[in-house]
Amino acid sequence: MQFTRPRGTRDFLPEEMARRRYTEKVMRETFESDGYREIQTPVFESLELITAKSGEDIVKHLYDFKDKSQRSLALRPELTLPVMRLYISELQRKAKPIKLYYFGNCFRYEEPQAGRYREFWQAGVELIGTRYPEAEAEVIALAVEVLKKLGLKDFELHIGNIGILRKILQESGVAEKEQGRVLHLVDKREREELENFLNELKISKENKQVLLKILNLAGDKKEVISRARKLLKGRATLLKELEKLEATLRFLDLKYSLNLGIARGLDYYSGMVFEIYANKLGAQRQICGGGAYSLSGTLGGEETATCGFAFGFDRVMLALGVEKVDFNLGNKTQILVVPVSEGLLDEAIKISSIIRKSFSCEVDLMRRKLGKALAYANSEGIPFVVILGDEELAKDSVTLRNMKTGEQKEIKLNELEKIGEKI
Amino acid sequence: MQFTRPRGTRDFLPEEMARRRYTEKVMRETFESDGYREIQTPVFESLELITAKSGEDIVKHLYDFKDKSQRSLALRPELTLPVMRLYISELQRKAKPIKLYYFGNCFRYEEPQAGRYREFWQAGVELIGTRYPEAEAEVIALAVEVLKKLGLKDFELHIGNIGILRKILQESGVAEKEQGRVLHLVDKREREELENFLNELKISKENKQVLLKILNLAGDKKEVISRARKLLKGRATLLKELEKLEATLRFLDLKYSLNLGIARGLDYYSGMVFEIYANKLGAQRQICGGGAYSLSGTLGGEETATCGFAFGFDRVMLALGVEKVDFNLGNKTQILVVPVSEGLLDEAIKISSIIRKSFSCEVDLMRRKLGKALAYANSEGIPFVVILGDEELAKDSVTLRNMKTGEQKEIKLNELEKIGEKI
Repeated sequence: MQFTRPRGTRDFLPEEMARRRYTEKVMRETFESDGYREIQTPVFESLELITAKSGEDIVKHLYDFKDKSQRSLALRPELTLPVMRLYISELQRKAKPIKLYYFGNCFRYEEPQAGRYREFWQAGVELIGTRYPEAEAEVIALAVEVLKKLGLKDFELHIGNIGILRKILQESGVAEKEQGRVLHLVDKREREELENFLNELKISKENKQVLLKILNLAGDKKEVISRARKLLKGRATLLKELEKLEATLRFLDLKYSLNLGIARGLDYYSGMVFEIYANKLGAQRQICGGGAYSLSGTLGGEETATCGFAFGFDRVMLALGVEKVDFNLGNKTQILVVPVSEGLLDEAIKISSIIRKSFSCEVDLMRRKLGKALAYANSEGIPFVVILGDEELAKDSVTLRNMKTGEQKEIKLNELEKIGEKI
Repeated sequence: MQFTRPRGTRDFLPEEMARRRYTEKVMRETFESDGYREIQTPVFESLELITAKSGEDIVKHLYDFKDKSQRSLALRPELTLPVMRLYISELQRKAKPIKLYYFGNCFRYEEPQAGRYREFWQAGVELIGTRYPEAEAEVIALAVEVLKKLGLKDFELHIGNIGILRKILQESGVAEKEQGRVLHLVDKREREELENFLNELKISKENKQVLLKILNLAGDKKEVISRARKLLKGRATLLKELEKLEATLRFLDLKYSLNLGIARGLDYYSGMVFEIYANKLGAQRQICGGGAYSLSGTLGGEETATCGFAFGFDRVMLALGVEKVDFNLGNKTQILVVPVSEGLLDEAIKISSIIRKSFSCEVDLMRRKLGKALAYANSEGIPFVVILGDEELAKDSVTLRNMKTGEQKEIKLNELEKIGEKI
C-alpha cells in the first residue's frame, strides 16, 4: 500500500526548498537590518486564545482537536495572536518599541486551490508600543523593501483605514462584536448583506450613508482624502492619522493607492490597514496584509498600540515564479570523489572530508566503475571529479578532472586543502 | 484573562532564537557541503502512515485527531517516515544515492521534563540507495563533524548493530511484529520482561542465551568483536558488516564505543545503529540517533537500503549551553537614528533607509527627547547614534555619536552610504 500526503498540504523538493530558503533569508536579513528580532511560538495554541479575536472566517476553518488530557487545542491559523500572547507574558516590561519578526507555518481547513493551501507559511513583523503614523509608514515601507530586494516588480500597495469605520460605528453605539461582523461583510464585499445588517443595527440614516460611501472611496490619494473630508464634514479629526501617514509616505516616495474599503479578515485591526497585491496571481493575488491594531488589552495585557504585517510566503513564492525571478542559487555539489576500486573507498571518504573544508563535495558511495561514475557526475552537473587510483596514491597524488573540458591534472595529497587554486 | 501556552511547548525569545538559527545554519551548511539537499514535508500526516512502522512507544504518545472531513491525521512524531513517503512518491526513479536532509518540528505527548518537550525539533539526513558499510561510516562521520563544527566537546559516540539480533530472531522463526516487541524491550532495558517474552516465543535455549549475551557486549571495539565472534561461532557472516564498518571508522580516526545492546525506539532499523550522548545532560543525554533501515518496501515502494540520523536539536542546544559554547552572534542594531524634533521623523526614516544598506539601523519611533533616546541606545547596547537637528540638516549634515567614547562628528548627507568609513 502506498501512503499519500494529507489533502491541501505540500512536500517541497530540494530545488523548490532552496528557493524558499533563499527567499526566507532575504526577508530575515531585511527585517534584521531594521532592528527586528526573531521569536518563535508553538505550532498549536489553546483553542481559547485562537478564538478570542480571530474573526469568524478563521474560526470556521480551524484545525482544532483535544490532546490526551482533553485540553482543547488548535493549530495556529495565523501568527499575530500567538506573538501577542508571548509579548504579554514575556516582553511587556521591556523598553518600547519592541520589534519582533516571525517565520512559521499556519493552518486553515479551506478548499485547496491555486495559492491556497491548508498548511501555508507566514513571515511578518510586529512593531509594539508606538502609535505614530510615521512608525506605521516605516512598517509599510519595510514590506515594500522586502519585495524590492527579492526582485519582484509587479505589485500594488493599497492602504486604508479601518479606524474611520470603527469610530462612526462606535458613535452610533454599535458594540465591538457587531463591529466585527460589519468589517467581516466589508472584507467579503457582500454589500447587500452589509446594508441589511446596518439596517438591523438601527444606526442613523445619515451615518449609514456616510459609511457606505466611505467604503467606496478608492484610487488617487488626493481625491480620496478630499472626498472623505467632504463626507465627514465636522468630523475631520477622523482623517488626521490618515493625512499624516499620507504625508510621510509621500516624503518616502512610496507608490500606493488609498482604498477605504479595505477591512482585512481579522477582528483585531483598529486603524491603518494595508494589503499588497501581485495581480498576476488572480483570485489569490494578496501577498501581504497588515495594519495597526490593539490586541494586547483583549488578551489580558496592558493596552498597547501595535502595527504589523505578514507576507503570505507561499504566494510571494508564486509571484516570484510568475515573474521568473532568477534565484541564482549555487549550493550544488562541486566535486565528486571517485575511487577506482572498492578498496579505496575508505581513502576516498577521508579525502572528501579534506576537500569539504572549502568545497561542497561528495564521494561516490555506490562503488560505481569509473566510467559510470563520470557519467553520473555529468548527469548531475557536478563540474569536477577527483579520481583515486592505486598508482597515483602510491605517489601521494590524485587526478583532478574538469568535466566540461575533459582536462585532467595530477594533484598532490597535501595540496588538497587548497584545491581551489587548481580549479 | 491571560492566555497560557500549551503544556510542554515553548516560546523562543530573540536571544535564544538567534542561537538556534545559528546552530541550524551550521548543521545546514555541513549537510550541504556533503551533498545533502533539503526537503520539507507537512507538519501532519495520515495516521495510517505514522502508525505503519513507528514502534509502540511512539504510537502511544501521538497527537492524533480528525479533520473536518473525518480524516485521521497525526502531528508527525519524527521525520524519517514522512521523508520516506516523499521519497517513494517523488524521487524513487532518480539516480542513486539520494541524499536528503530536513529540519523540522515533531510532536509527542510525553510528560514534560528537562530536555523533553511536546514540540521538539529534529535535524537529520537520509542517505537512500546504498547499503555499503563505508557509506554508513560516512553518515556517522557527518554527525560527528556537525558537533565538532558547533564547538561541542564532551560527547560520546556509541555504535551497535540491530541486524545481528534480527537475524538470530529470524532464524528462530520470530515474525517481524514480535521482533519489534523484542527490540522495544531491549531499547527500554527491561531485561526481565525481555527474558519472559523470549521464553514465550519458544526460541531455542541456545539462541536465547546467545541473544542475551550479545546484548551485554559493550565497550572496547576489539574485545566486543572477538567476544561476539566466539558467541556466534559458525555464523561469523553475521559480523561481516560490523567488521567492515569498524575498519573504515578506524581509518577515519573516529572515536567510539561498540555497544550491541543499542536497539533504538523505532521499529524500522535493520542493521547498524548509533547514538551520540552528551553525558552532562543526564537522563536525556541522547542528542543524536540513527542507523541503517529498510522502510521503503513497507511503505509501498521498492525495497531500498537507507541510512540516516537525526539530531535532537533542542538537546544539542542544551548541550552547547551546558558547555557554555560562545555563539559570537553580532546581528544587533548598530545605529540608532534620532530626530531632535517631531517634525524631523520623516527625514529620520529616510536617512535610516540609506544607512540600512550597510548597517543594521533603527529609527527612534517613540518621539523621545534626545537625552532619553541616548539613554535608550545605551541601555540596548547600540554603539552609534545619528542625531538629526534642524541646523545641521540646513547644512546637509547630521551628527554621528560614538556611544562608548561620547565623541561626535559631523557627517554630510551624501556620505551616509559610506558611513562605515566614519565609524
